[in-house]
Amino acid sequence: MTGTAAILGGGVIGGGWAARFALMGWDVRVFDPDPEAKRKIAEVMAGAERALPMLYEAPMPKRGEISFHASPAEAVTGAAWVQESVPERLELKHALYHEIAGSLSMDAVVGSSTSGFTPTQLQTGGGLLDRLVVAHPFNPVYLLPLVELVPSASTSDQTMARAKDILTAVGMYPLHVRAEIDAHIADRFLEAVWREALWLVKDGIATTEEIDNAIRYGFGLRWAQMGLFETYRVAGGEAGMKHFMAQFGPALEWPWTKLMDVPEFTDELVDLIASQSDDQSGALSIRELERLRDDNLVAILRALKQQGAAAGALIRDHERGLWPALDEAAPLITVRRVIPVDWTDMNGHMNEGRYGQIFSDASEVLMAHVGADEDYVAAGNSYFTAQTTIKYLAETHAGERVEVATRVTLGEGRKLRLWHEMRRPDGEVLATCDQFLLHVSLETRRSCPPLPEVEAKVEALAKAHTET
Amino acid sequence: MTGTAAILGGGVIGGGWAARFALMGWDVRVFDPDPEAKRKIAEVMAGAERALPMLYEAPMPKRGEISFHASPAEAVTGAAWVQESVPERLELKHALYHEIAGSLSMDAVVGSSTSGFTPTQLQTGGGLLDRLVVAHPFNPVYLLPLVELVPSASTSDQTMARAKDILTAVGMYPLHVRAEIDAHIADRFLEAVWREALWLVKDGIATTEEIDNAIRYGFGLRWAQMGLFETYRVAGGEAGMKHFMAQFGPALEWPWTKLMDVPEFTDELVDLIASQSDDQSGALSIRELERLRDDNLVAILRALKQQGAAAGALIRDHERGLWPALDEAAPLITVRRVIPVDWTDMNGHMNEGRYGQIFSDASEVLMAHVGADEDYVAAGNSYFTAQTTIKYLAETHAGERVEVATRVTLGEGRKLRLWHEMRRPDGEVLATCDQFLLHVSLETRRSCPPLPEVEAKVEALAKAHTET
Repeated sequence: MTGTAAILGGGVIGGGWAARFALMGWDVRVFDPDPEAKRKIAEVMAGAERALPMLYEAPMPKRGEISFHASPAEAVTGAAWVQESVPERLELKHALYHEIAGSLSMDAVVGSSTSGFTPTQLQTGGGLLDRLVVAHPFNPVYLLPLVELVPSASTSDQTMARAKDILTAVGMYPLHVRAEIDAHIADRFLEAVWREALWLVKDGIATTEEIDNAIRYGFGLRWAQMGLFETYRVAGGEAGMKHFMAQFGPALEWPWTKLMDVPEFTDELVDLIASQSDDQSGALSIRELERLRDDNLVAILRALKQQGAAAGALIRDHERGLWPALDEAAPLITVRRVIPVDWTDMNGHMNEGRYGQIFSDASEVLMAHVGADEDYVAAGNSYFTAQTTIKYLAETHAGERVEVATRVTLGEGRKLRLWHEMRRPDGEVLATCDQFLLHVSLETRRSCPPLPEVEAKVEALAKAHTET
Repeated sequence: MTGTAAILGGGVIGGGWAARFALMGWDVRVFDPDPEAKRKIAEVMAGAERALPMLYEAPMPKRGEISFHASPAEAVTGAAWVQESVPERLELKHALYHEIAGSLSMDAVVGSSTSGFTPTQLQTGGGLLDRLVVAHPFNPVYLLPLVELVPSASTSDQTMARAKDILTAVGMYPLHVRAEIDAHIADRFLEAVWREALWLVKDGIATTEEIDNAIRYGFGLRWAQMGLFETYRVAGGEAGMKHFMAQFGPALEWPWTKLMDVPEFTDELVDLIASQSDDQSGALSIRELERLRDDNLVAILRALKQQGAAAGALIRDHERGLWPALDEAAPLITVRRVIPVDWTDMNGHMNEGRYGQIFSDASEVLMAHVGADEDYVAAGNSYFTAQTTIKYLAETHAGERVEVATRVTLGEGRKLRLWHEMRRPDGEVLATCDQFLLHVSLETRRSCPPLPEVEAKVEALAKAHTET
């Protein structure tokens, strides 16, 4: 599903929304009175364009157009999704909603990125009752899937259903927050941790860097994949969740009075934190840190994707809808993708082994095309690779767009031979692969002829590909 | 560095310590009065033995012996490291310390896994003044690198230095906590989040599963790599940390009274959480969940390692010390490792591309051996792979131990040809690789002869390997 999205307010968050929608094939109409808005969104877009496609093995949709508009009313014209990310001032948001109300499409959904207001507060005095919903994302919006979707009693079921469909279509996870509370769900945790961190720094217990290390070398790794409760369920062991709570619950009543108090936000505290943060991270610019963050997130998300777990499972599901039908022209274009950061070595070159992987991916697409797909394998038949010869012709780097053209050079009975060429968009061939496969029975683990319908398709392809 | 470690108390935490030390080549002496202790530690060990070696490309040290002892005094005999992980009752810990005091080696360090007591509390009435330190780990101890190392005024500098050396040698990150406070550092955050989560469940705002999703699809991914402050520094953008705090600070004073209060820990609340947790995760046993957790952690840690970032950078540093000197016998054993979970497909078979990687890793080890190492590459010379032919002879699965035997079949001027065999411990050849490389100048990107000392070594190997 693609369409048109309107982005009202183009800061880090609005820019992240714009980038995600555009990269998922949506046309994006932006309104932001900031004269720097174009530059700022272009900067976010540059980061997003590099990182987001790396999450997917499937080819990305054709990128949508980003246009800039003089008024919010003009920006929302024709948009199925309107995302408001203006500063957290209620009267500002109310005024904006009144300004766009008359220009919205019939079925448009308006999402607000607010972390501080409830949907009822946004609606009271702002109108847009049934079609407005809080859609609170997390930075970087183009990589993190979570969006908290908070309706009020006035938000219609139809709006919620549309919102879930659209957010899922752009690769996000809409978490339906069933009650309106301050700070929704995730920011309640972030606030609790932030307050605790301020105390630790203020009291000189730990520096900002020591705190970050206490998180990223320990529980941060657990939370990235299982969250809080499932982690504790595992820690509790076979005795179960009740047993775990019996052990851990009483700890809450220990006299950690600091946890219940808010440190005063003095200039001194601000200076202390800012200078510790400079010591910790000041050697790198924010752009450099952003890039490290994005590379790490891409690598973590791809690791989870490979496991079919947590946020990686969401990307797998989303990717299924991205595969286009294979064009029957010879040669078949079996891969169309960018080289992700986890495929390259320290010098940024694509690792030797990943050439094998990209050609293996190409064969899998061809297999699915001839009917030797997941169901075929589940029924006990498969092609196994017996031998590959790869020639490395030119260097390939992270972020490059490549495609693989595949020909069937032999398709006779149990034998299948493929010729793959990996190319740049300009046609330069980066590597070739001569791949020989045998059809096997997964029961006997020995070679056997393919089922007739697969055999017929393979033979037809071999004929077409050796004649052209 | 290896030696002998004593583990007093063999639950999930003690078992995790035992497994980490043993897998890093330390002999481990266990005391635990629980008649089930052997079985419990064996279970933790099985999980650790599968997962921990997957973090490393280097061969693991020879596993240490695990022995069980009738008394704590017997267990600590000859141990350089003593880890106490008995239940959180101060009088129990004090009694144990008195029991071992007379049997400790001169330079033994005693670490306590306590999360609830300060080192001063442990020492007051427990003795072991200068040699005792809190060494608080995180579950699973065999995968998470963080250990909070908290000295009291009585803990000697020598004890701290020894503790840091030993913990680093077994692949952990000792975080020196400079002040004694309740719950050290990380658990302060865990408690703050746990309390907030209890409120959200109790008030019916969110279920345990919704809360886990709010964490693992959002900020959990950020925290796994950058923690809290660096994440916010990036979010604050070029305006800097002060600007970020000016925006975010005031939010702390919002009237979220729930955050300041402790929910009563009633049976009703315990039942509610236990039943939601069953709905969320009850389809899988704890063993199955543990395995999923470990696979995810291995995949995340390896992704970060590949990026050279966060906890992955720690593993890289640790790994440098694990590489043994290459045995000069022909053929050279260039790889000795287990197949990690991120190298296999959904069916558990090693992915085609990873064969290319393991043979590429084998070449890199050979390169370093002949002097074409990181410095050589930094100086502008390198070998590039021009062509590989891989034959796939048998299936390989996650967790299998394999080695690669490498012969130089041609070494003349700019040409280098290698023959790799990947084998099981029983000698069965799983795959072979015929690899042809060319020596190149990184400046001109064209082939050129290697430097004389490298050329001489390559030629000598070719002679030795084609004669045998």
